[in-house]
Amino acid sequence: MRTFIIVGHKATTSPDFSLEDIPGTSGRLDILCRCINAAFVLSHGIRHDVRVLLVLCGGEPSKIVCLRGGDLRHLNPDERTTAALLKKALAVVAESQWSRSTPGIFVRTGGLSDVLSEIKGKKILYLKEDGTDIRNQDGKLLDDAAFILGDHLGMTTEEESMIEQAGAEVVSIGPVSLHADHCIVILNWFLDTNPFSP
Amino acid sequence: MRTFIIVGHKATTSPDFSLEDIPGTSGRLDILCRCINAAFVLSHGIRHDVRVLLVLCGGEPSKIVCLRGGDLRHLNPDERTTAALLKKALAVVAESQWSRSTPGIFVRTGGLSDVLSEIKGKKILYLKEDGTDIRNQDGKLLDDAAFILGDHLGMTTEEESMIEQAGAEVVSIGPVSLHADHCIVILNWFLDTNPFSP
Repeated sequence: MRTFIIVGHKATTSPDFSLEDIPGTSGRLDILCRCINAAFVLSHGIRHDVRVLLVLCGGEPSKIVCLRGGDLRHLNPDERTTAALLKKALAVVAESQWSRSTPGIFVRTGGLSDVLSEIKGKKILYLKEDGTDIRNQDGKLLDDAAFILGDHLGMTTEEESMIEQAGAEVVSIGPVSLHADHCIVILNWFLDTNPFSP
Repeated sequence: MRTFIIVGHKATTSPDFSLEDIPGTSGRLDILCRCINAAFVLSHGIRHDVRVLLVLCGGEPSKIVCLRGGDLRHLNPDERTTAALLKKALAVVAESQWSRSTPGIFVRTGGLSDVLSEIKGKKILYLKEDGTDIRNQDGKLLDDAAFILGDHLGMTTEEESMIEQAGAEVVSIGPVSLHADHCIVILNWFLDTNPFSP
């Protein structure tokens, strides 16, 4: 299963944001909505072999939202519908264990360190402009990997240190700096076509 | 300059759609908004060397909207802001010649045949699942090419015939059928990294 982890540094942990102004009222939850679309949406359905873990740091305590392709329902490609699903998830009373919101969407309190515990044992790749070319990786080993991406603010030094300690390799997908959702589209395509395997 | 052409078969030609329900009231203009994001948006700015031509067939007469990266302004990554820019463009009185809406956005009446006249002389690639692998193309020749993509409804037989007569080659980017915006992300990445040139 492919896992995409995106850290939203200002992303709200509260459902009290406006669907009429997602970027302006939710701490840029729109970025995470586009990442969800990029991770799951296909022409005729959704990817079942994908999991997305969103780390929302714009509230106290921080929260993690998990979306699992295998049982995900009600996901449409547009940004507003996705934001409405996240709004519902954030209205669920979150504890340190997972609670289910709508089918395939789960929420808990926690931060990046909890997510890193969750993916322990997996190959971890941290996407960053100055990483080594991902095409040097053996594509066959990546289909069960976890990919960590930042939002528009990038990772803090403390976060990067945690990611490094978790054993992540730092990789880049190309010479042009792209938004997280575009990186996810390209990563899915990499794994679909496996153009760089030996 | 890279040109992306997307045909919106039901896409409204009128500004009278709701920003609160773009998919439900605009003939799926949301699809075209995501294509605009995919074509232009970079981490720190927009792509200046890109042009997007949208063919809106959900009204009489049909309209063409052109977005030019070189002078495009007010484009944010979120879907709603992009839809608001299209709403403004559709409020401009359209004639058979281009009229400017906001900076970098132009509108006229017309359809796919007019767009094909507009790109005459360019290398044209029509994206379709059963096309030949795009990686067989010489990447160096593609940076000035025009790429034609359908929306969720695909092209009609008549449109495909027009595209063929314009000299287009039919190409595919991989084994999985993707939405037009995801195809554009991958095409931009192809052209950025040029991984398949000889």
